[in-house]
Amino acid sequence: MKRRLLIAALMASAATGAFAQGAPPPYGAPIAIEDARRVVAAALAEATRQSLPMAVAVVDSGGHLVAFERADGTQLGSIRVAQEKARTSVEFRRPTKAFEDGIVGGRNAILGLGVMPIEGGIPLLRDGRVIGAIGVSGGTAPQDGVIAQAGVAALR
Amino acid sequence: MKRRLLIAALMASAATGAFAQGAPPPYGAPIAIEDARRVVAAALAEATRQSLPMAVAVVDSGGHLVAFERADGTQLGSIRVAQEKARTSVEFRRPTKAFEDGIVGGRNAILGLGVMPIEGGIPLLRDGRVIGAIGVSGGTAPQDGVIAQAGVAALR
Amino acid sequence: MKRRLLIAALMASAATGAFAQGAPPPYGAPIAIEDARRVVAAALAEATRQSLPMAVAVVDSGGHLVAFERADGTQLGSIRVAQEKARTSVEFRRPTKAFEDGIVGGRNAILGLGVMPIEGGIPLLRDGRVIGAIGVSGGTAPQDGVIAQAGVAALR
Amino acid sequence: MKRRLLIAALMASAATGAFAQGAPPPYGAPIAIEDARRVVAAALAEATRQSLPMAVAVVDSGGHLVAFERADGTQLGSIRVAQEKARTSVEFRRPTKAFEDGIVGGRNAILGLGVMPIEGGIPLLRDGRVIGAIGVSGGTAPQDGVIAQAGVAALR
Repeated sequence: MKRRLLIAALMASAATGAFAQGAPPPYGAPIAIEDARRVVAAALAEATRQSLPMAVAVVDSGGHLVAFERADGTQLGSIRVAQEKARTSVEFRRPTKAFEDGIVGGRNAILGLGVMPIEGGIPLLRDGRVIGAIGVSGGTAPQDGVIAQAGVAALR
Repeated sequence: MKRRLLIAALMASAATGAFAQGAPPPYGAPIAIEDARRVVAAALAEATRQSLPMAVAVVDSGGHLVAFERADGTQLGSIRVAQEKARTSVEFRRPTKAFEDGIVGGRNAILGLGVMPIEGGIPLLRDGRVIGAIGVSGGTAPQDGVIAQAGVAALR
Repeated sequence: MKRRLLIAALMASAATGAFAQGAPPPYGAPIAIEDARRVVAAALAEATRQSLPMAVAVVDSGGHLVAFERADGTQLGSIRVAQEKARTSVEFRRPTKAFEDGIVGGRNAILGLGVMPIEGGIPLLRDGRVIGAIGVSGGTAPQDGVIAQAGVAALR
Repeated sequence: MKRRLLIAALMASAATGAFAQGAPPPYGAPIAIEDARRVVAAALAEATRQSLPMAVAVVDSGGHLVAFERADGTQLGSIRVAQEKARTSVEFRRPTKAFEDGIVGGRNAILGLGVMPIEGGIPLLRDGRVIGAIGVSGGTAPQDGVIAQAGVAALR
């Protein structure tokens, strides 16, 4: 688990500095529904604990939706944003924060890439392979990122 | 519960005979995540019991996704189809079977309506109001309908 | 090889009779580029031998494009159609001919399903699992189907 | 060949300085599949030599896909990005780097143009006419550009 978080963190910082540098993790088998459900539940539980109404999506390694839940009172736009964060994270095998940081760093061309460039999407890894991704939306970008990490941490 | 199923059945047969006949149920407040989760779990549990890999979506009274789960081994096309069945059921406040029956009855114009005209989408009612809908996909149309009913039945 | 074609044929006929009857083959790992290239080349070679200008697409088990070629003189519409046939075949794990036969048999509701219901898309199996699909367009539906089979046959 | 690369280089620098200055090359006949296949193969060979998993697309002078290949292990997002780079290059008869440079130079309005403003798309010229374009994605923008040039160089 610790190793997995470490990999994700390294990947994020690498991607922040320059796009696609370092070897990205390979794709693996699609995440199982049992795991996806656990990830969604852990993220929503933490969001509830912080009184944050949020939408949480988990997609598989092909970017296809596996599980989704939206807490009562979550803004409607987050339904789409959470899913697109998860999809972006799988499609580019990196946290969406990497794209957000790139834009903050001045690389506005990222806005033309067709990705969801806001923190809150993180690849889900198992044995060093991307088996899916979580996408969270409903709070500030950093809040979304924290809740997404709570989901990642449930993937033991 | 019995009363609710009865209403749904009446609504379905009304819609089959002719479109939009009889007073459709009014829209109510959006379904709560607790209820949506229960509906999805009941439907997937029944699908698993019948060894049917399925996707189950619940949308609220605005047609917006609240909860979604896809069992391992479900065909990918069902991700989209399940959601569109649920959305269609809310948008027209009737089971998707009504549209399918209409086409079977020769009314092909329904195909231009932009709906998902296959059994498996059913409105979720509370106190006579549409609070959302369930959409199921993965089996034959009648199988999808049976599983969707199992989800409806969980909404006490 | 023979066995694989047999399975595909059985699946097609099963799907023709009634939708999603019989256990569909499970999804497997995504097809490798070497295999996809071989499938496309074999299909286009056969199309050329028959003087048929065609577009040939191969997608992986997630429905994502792996290889595509379009012969000189192919109608532009076939670019999209070939890809959608392949995608449909993966998303529903059956030949697109199953959908076409369903409509011929009177089940017009299929037209609302959002699939490409024309012969010419066939799942690609390895060890009984769907690793992708081929989609062919440019000729008549039966011609597209024959060329697609030539592609399937190259997957040894 | 040398002359063609020179033209491309001139065009790129012209486009960088200011949009649409200088006479852009006219459109010619659509690239033949033989040529498109050679361009894709050369680009992918160079990408493999550099151990870069990439997607390579070639479109014709109408912006329509002619050939596409995606190496094993390429990020899924590159399927779309490679094709959009190629399409952008044909639609505006210039390398996509011209748009990226424009944004780097402060012209953010380009982001509203609906183009893929990242290096890696280059027009394919024959006798001074645009017969198509190559689009490459999978590495950093400069890496994509180098691989795209390897594809351009195969068009003798």
